[in-house]
Amino acid sequence: MKKADIGIIGMEVMGKSLALNMESKGYFVAVFNRTGSKTEAFVNGPAKGKNILSTYTIEDFVNTLKSPKKIMLMVKAGKPVDIFIEKLLPLLSKGDLIIDGGNSYFKDTMRRNTELAERGILYIGTGVSGGEEGALKGPALMPGGQLEAYTLVEGLFKNIAAKAEDGKPCVSYIGPHGAGHFVKMVHNGIEYADMQLIGECVWTFKNAFDMSSGEIGNIISKWNGKNDVLRSYLIEITADGLKERYKRSDEYLVDRTADITRMKGTGTWTVQSALELLVPIPTIASAVFSREMSQDKDLRLKMARELTLRKERANESLEDMIDIAHDALYVAKISAYAQGLALLRAGSDEYGFDLNLGNIVRGWRAGCIIRAQFLDEITRAYEENSQIPNLLAAPRFAEIVNRDIGKLAYFIDIAHSVGVPIPAMDSAYDYIVQLAMPIMVSAQVSAQQRDYFGSHGYFKIRGLNDPRILTTDDGKIREFHTEWQLQDRPEKEITK
Amino acid sequence: MKKADIGIIGMEVMGKSLALNMESKGYFVAVFNRTGSKTEAFVNGPAKGKNILSTYTIEDFVNTLKSPKKIMLMVKAGKPVDIFIEKLLPLLSKGDLIIDGGNSYFKDTMRRNTELAERGILYIGTGVSGGEEGALKGPALMPGGQLEAYTLVEGLFKNIAAKAEDGKPCVSYIGPHGAGHFVKMVHNGIEYADMQLIGECVWTFKNAFDMSSGEIGNIISKWNGKNDVLRSYLIEITADGLKERYKRSDEYLVDRTADITRMKGTGTWTVQSALELLVPIPTIASAVFSREMSQDKDLRLKMARELTLRKERANESLEDMIDIAHDALYVAKISAYAQGLALLRAGSDEYGFDLNLGNIVRGWRAGCIIRAQFLDEITRAYEENSQIPNLLAAPRFAEIVNRDIGKLAYFIDIAHSVGVPIPAMDSAYDYIVQLAMPIMVSAQVSAQQRDYFGSHGYFKIRGLNDPRILTTDDGKIREFHTEWQLQDRPEKEITK
Repeated sequence: MKKADIGIIGMEVMGKSLALNMESKGYFVAVFNRTGSKTEAFVNGPAKGKNILSTYTIEDFVNTLKSPKKIMLMVKAGKPVDIFIEKLLPLLSKGDLIIDGGNSYFKDTMRRNTELAERGILYIGTGVSGGEEGALKGPALMPGGQLEAYTLVEGLFKNIAAKAEDGKPCVSYIGPHGAGHFVKMVHNGIEYADMQLIGECVWTFKNAFDMSSGEIGNIISKWNGKNDVLRSYLIEITADGLKERYKRSDEYLVDRTADITRMKGTGTWTVQSALELLVPIPTIASAVFSREMSQDKDLRLKMARELTLRKERANESLEDMIDIAHDALYVAKISAYAQGLALLRAGSDEYGFDLNLGNIVRGWRAGCIIRAQFLDEITRAYEENSQIPNLLAAPRFAEIVNRDIGKLAYFIDIAHSVGVPIPAMDSAYDYIVQLAMPIMVSAQVSAQQRDYFGSHGYFKIRGLNDPRILTTDDGKIREFHTEWQLQDRPEKEITK
Repeated sequence: MKKADIGIIGMEVMGKSLALNMESKGYFVAVFNRTGSKTEAFVNGPAKGKNILSTYTIEDFVNTLKSPKKIMLMVKAGKPVDIFIEKLLPLLSKGDLIIDGGNSYFKDTMRRNTELAERGILYIGTGVSGGEEGALKGPALMPGGQLEAYTLVEGLFKNIAAKAEDGKPCVSYIGPHGAGHFVKMVHNGIEYADMQLIGECVWTFKNAFDMSSGEIGNIISKWNGKNDVLRSYLIEITADGLKERYKRSDEYLVDRTADITRMKGTGTWTVQSALELLVPIPTIASAVFSREMSQDKDLRLKMARELTLRKERANESLEDMIDIAHDALYVAKISAYAQGLALLRAGSDEYGFDLNLGNIVRGWRAGCIIRAQFLDEITRAYEENSQIPNLLAAPRFAEIVNRDIGKLAYFIDIAHSVGVPIPAMDSAYDYIVQLAMPIMVSAQVSAQQRDYFGSHGYFKIRGLNDPRILTTDDGKIREFHTEWQLQDRPEKEITK
């Protein structure tokens, strides 16, 4: 009997879609699910007549696979992954490969990779982005693991992955052990921020001009034009969704949709990782917090009765506003992506992922949720200088920010005046402004406060006109403490 | 030989100050330090002639204590705490008490409490706030552990704690196991936010009117007046610090201070805990991120050369600005404290701390860094209704916010126009506005986006004029999905 090229465990929407995708590219795929009825429904439904083999015991499943066996887990992140690994282990031989295609926490993937490597089993943790349609027609893949493991599936991955406009498949080797899931996690964090920024923009139009969702959808549609810097999948589906009618009535579906944005955890993980790595990602954090606030609907309904906030109409012409909002959104997006990419850089250093940011962004240009024209610009920035310390340091982005940050500030003023909360826009703006400050006065004040109440010491700058840190001749940072409790408040040097 | 009432391990600044504080209240204190030279320096220095007993082996230290023995650890959080517990265990008997007075992570305290309880040893993890001076003259204490353990030291704690203006000691039993350290952690998170808000205010004055630090100090000093709502320790020391001259020159010390705010981790933990508990605390998070940005000075110096941002002078009169800034700061503070208190409430529910928020805030009125007149107002709000779902729901605060949130918005406009990044002010504002929204349009958009790209489903509101969630007759939330890929986009109900 002919053996299968690859096996997929987990017949939920992503597992089924990937199986169909692989089959359509000529691969013979074995499938298995914990409850057999789902497998049966699949092979008698969408997979009927296709080169897909159903199995109903884990032993049969493994036996149908060619060696080295390649098994892709498409199960819920967390315990289920460990459970299936345990079940598979006795049935596998040295050199076989397990691939986790779920949204696993990257530290779990690091651990699993190490544990399996000790037993001679190869392991890949791969990000799979693009939702159901992406999985079916071509996802963006972000595989991490041994290079040797990647080599085993490179051909398959390139075949099933989305293709960018230049024809390149949206997959490349990301790095060792947890690198793929780390990158996918940050991708999702950026996605949260992007979605939130667009939502704030829509809301501002609605309040400023009392526009219908359909009218706003028409504006946003134009931003998806061929050479528009905002052209992206999220812009496209937002515009399309806004125009969708509610049961063919005069109403719009989005207006009937509850204002509750749920989440599965990758955005939260992104912020937690950033906190561990001391990387500021305020716009991604604001998107996570905003989702949390959306979920506390009971509290909001109660508070809406207590708090009465001002709300004016905009004074700007709609034409001006469209121009302002468009450019403001682009600057805010640049800020959010700069934050996410800074986190990738820090994670790469901390965990030894050795990430190639240019390649990673190139791999996001199709298939995934944040695919966008703009990613070509980012790719180019890294091609010009792969070592830029921050995306905003790339001349092509610094130029845009210098030109248009005033529009972001203007947009923020308008949004506030028309009563729209815009935490993502605000934090995107503040991130840029803080980054551009040779002296943060707020930090001078806080450094002094800490020395005053906690004797924590402070550093100094070289002089009022030289904001660099005062060091000793051999480059050590000089540290000081003022004895605030004493009458004459002597300052003493406490350089360690 | 007379036995000591209590023993303190760790002769760093906090341990020494607490020992002196206890001795001054009539307690006989034994002290020990890992390196004996520090103990020696202490008893021959500040503790000379005082009723403080130095010991140089852990056995001697334990032997000098009255039973049940009470030992307070004032060592670095983390491993050192576990190491000393291990050393002490063989020397202790059932019913003896170990107190951890460091800034331990509350989950470590929960674990240690459980482990020690199994061996019959009582355990308290207590927050100690107030810095060196507080520890010496009267700190705010936040003890968590067995009530039985607290009873053993209640008298001592009340004696050494700070006293509020009404004479009440700033200590009360917080709750079981990790409750004390959890509350101290959130206290510190609030402190970060408060410091950042004040710093942003100072910076805005500086840019808006080109004022000297001393002049700003004079303004802030007035906010510490007897009946001022902003009257607080942080306002007091900020004003005092701003006026401090640099080596008796014309310059001010704060202008020479490096704009680098360091941190020890409690603020970061606060945000991480909030993320775990799904509690939005954007203002505390913005303060943590801002400290991180302050630390990346090299990047800022580099970026300052790339990015050129606008900066105008303010059009407002200084008099108006002082009024606006004062009231804006108060509203922003209320928002930040509301976030922190919401986190306390959520932690209480999740970890079974059974926190009494009114008591906790009452205990912060003296001794600790965030002591402030304003805390009396919060205490009163909880006295009026201990079950308010959010501080902003308390009528006394809702009233202030309704009256003055326009000033916060106005302050934000001015800060932006004069080129000052104000992430804490912005997020404090956005938190309030989001909380007051019966419909968050941004969340409607994002809920729809998620269904579009990921088939994640969405809820509905009852009608365009009824923002409540649509449920079944028996109260179940109804869930829907639109088949976006199909021509006619049917909506189907997927209520689980």
